[in-house]
Amino acid sequence: MATKTTLKEFESVFPKLEEDLLSWVKQYNLPQQYLECSCSATVAFFSIVKHYPSPFIFPLTLDFHHGLESNNESQSLEENTVGGKCNRGMSVPDSVSLLLKRALTEEEYFQAAALGWMIELLQAFFLVSDDIMDSSITRRGKPCWYRQEGVGMVAINDAFMLESAIYTLLKKHFRSHPSYVDMMELFHEVTLQTELGQLCDLLTAPEDVVNLDNFSLEKHSFIVIYKTAYYSFYLPVALALQMLNVATPKNLKQAEDILIPMGEYFQIQDDYLDNFGLPEHIGKIGTDIMDNKCSWLVNTALKIATPEQRKVLEDHYGRKDKAHEAEIKKLYNEMKLEQLYQEYEEKTVSELKTKINQIDESEGLKKEVFEAFLSKIYKRSK
Amino acid sequence: MATKTTLKEFESVFPKLEEDLLSWVKQYNLPQQYLECSCSATVAFFSIVKHYPSPFIFPLTLDFHHGLESNNESQSLEENTVGGKCNRGMSVPDSVSLLLKRALTEEEYFQAAALGWMIELLQAFFLVSDDIMDSSITRRGKPCWYRQEGVGMVAINDAFMLESAIYTLLKKHFRSHPSYVDMMELFHEVTLQTELGQLCDLLTAPEDVVNLDNFSLEKHSFIVIYKTAYYSFYLPVALALQMLNVATPKNLKQAEDILIPMGEYFQIQDDYLDNFGLPEHIGKIGTDIMDNKCSWLVNTALKIATPEQRKVLEDHYGRKDKAHEAEIKKLYNEMKLEQLYQEYEEKTVSELKTKINQIDESEGLKKEVFEAFLSKIYKRSK
Repeated sequence: MATKTTLKEFESVFPKLEEDLLSWVKQYNLPQQYLECSCSATVAFFSIVKHYPSPFIFPLTLDFHHGLESNNESQSLEENTVGGKCNRGMSVPDSVSLLLKRALTEEEYFQAAALGWMIELLQAFFLVSDDIMDSSITRRGKPCWYRQEGVGMVAINDAFMLESAIYTLLKKHFRSHPSYVDMMELFHEVTLQTELGQLCDLLTAPEDVVNLDNFSLEKHSFIVIYKTAYYSFYLPVALALQMLNVATPKNLKQAEDILIPMGEYFQIQDDYLDNFGLPEHIGKIGTDIMDNKCSWLVNTALKIATPEQRKVLEDHYGRKDKAHEAEIKKLYNEMKLEQLYQEYEEKTVSELKTKINQIDESEGLKKEVFEAFLSKIYKRSK
Repeated sequence: MATKTTLKEFESVFPKLEEDLLSWVKQYNLPQQYLECSCSATVAFFSIVKHYPSPFIFPLTLDFHHGLESNNESQSLEENTVGGKCNRGMSVPDSVSLLLKRALTEEEYFQAAALGWMIELLQAFFLVSDDIMDSSITRRGKPCWYRQEGVGMVAINDAFMLESAIYTLLKKHFRSHPSYVDMMELFHEVTLQTELGQLCDLLTAPEDVVNLDNFSLEKHSFIVIYKTAYYSFYLPVALALQMLNVATPKNLKQAEDILIPMGEYFQIQDDYLDNFGLPEHIGKIGTDIMDNKCSWLVNTALKIATPEQRKVLEDHYGRKDKAHEAEIKKLYNEMKLEQLYQEYEEKTVSELKTKINQIDESEGLKKEVFEAFLSKIYKRSK
């Protein structure tokens, strides 16, 4: 359908946002010496540039490169950049289009995509820092940012700067928008909600301490809602509603009531696919069992386990060892977790469909927004 | 003078802000199971509470303690909390009072102190994360937060939550204030400026690589202005002006033109005192030489050094060893850095006084605001 954005189209907006960030930095009155003087000062800026091989890490630097080095160089930077699937970001223009029931004008598309990129910046801020907190090794097939040469703990500050870029862009493009204040507040609130979810996750499933007494389906639900559902599902739609000035309390409430359980379902699916999905579909080999993750599967198993099954979980979960992992996988099969997941999925999707059908569209909300989200995730295999 | 706040008075505002943060969390619709169900879920919340022994680290938790444990316990938490001198925070009510030329009403004082506490939260956010990035050992005489038992890298997320608390409080107390949007934008901008300064500092003086070619007085100036002057000097006065609705472009510009050089002077003084101050005055033994700090002293020495003196600097700076440090201290004395500092100080203070005298008060700015700042720092020994 022509009203649905493509990754290519979405990515085409990013260079404009990089430019915005550069011109904003120029307003800063950087001491003139830094820009004019001997190479040692230039080197200072270069080291900042080099510190950011990708504009995604801090977009302004790409433009320093543009100004200071060959296009070739900046070309290679561009390629390093926009690596993700951008599902969250792209759902802003998609939702705006579904709310308007038509394709977007160029100006509308730009605005919606800019908001989408702010979600991607928020996610980058979380991923850079979560990878440090989780001691992760790779991200999108490359070493995590903090593990790259010459970065280290400076990655913490880089994460902060990614967050700051959100508000710089929001100010640049939405300062005169009637929903500007609400947008800022929404980003603040969703940021904190996600931080709260991350905190609970870190406390419930520390990487190095296996204690299944810590786990429960209730905690799992709380963690995934706060850590994932708000920023991945609720935020894009809430921003789309704000952009169109139809973010009434009623519309926001209806969106939240559907998108939060939908985000929870999405994450439970993720947990399911980590063990039961095909590596060639999901693009990785799941490691949740060895990583002691507070996954839906282990929590479901714990809930229904006999004392003997509980012992198997205690003895083998969260060990960095394939033989231990195999015992857990065997148990999951014995316990028919695949079937339990499918029952959960059918029940949840049916409830979501009922809620979507009951939506009151009188203030400008559209059922199609939620149907589009749901159709993207129902029965997905990757 | 009665219009000047005391630490005790300023600290008395904090418990109210903690309550605000708690009631804001309650609005979050935490899943009911978390609050009601078996002790394992309660334990989840307790672990969050325990994770924050001090309300300063995340204030809402104190109130969980209030609700869930003995007063005794929360008393001890209170004592852990408010450890800093709060000079930045207290300068908001002081500036408001000087702008109004009178003592504040209770309501005015609360508002100004709330803004002051937001600066303290911003600083806590920076300190918690800077200590990780700098591999610092102690802070205010205790182990740094990330080094305390059971914290570790979760401190990164804690830092984020401190930052988030700023915007929660701002929304609660200033949402209907005419300057609300400007206040949010000011916090965003100053946050990014400080991050930029921190980035340059980390790149210019990495803890483990000694390379004096990296240093220069120009870089030093850039770093201290961005890393310190904006949030410590400009931010409190800008907030005071916004609170009183006199943050006109002209007033903000005049404030910035004086407070940024004043903040730079303050940091240069800090660098000077690290070596030439008396430990019994400054409350610590300076370690800038051994820590490879990009200090005003080493940059000034590098600027005027003969080739022989340069060699001494190369051979001995940034080594974690008292004998090396002694060589540098000897050189600093030979090079008469103390005298150079005093000349710098006299020149700077005289320029600042001239600028203060030239202030145009027609839009509500008052010279006394700046005189108060200057009198606090001129010739300080600690």
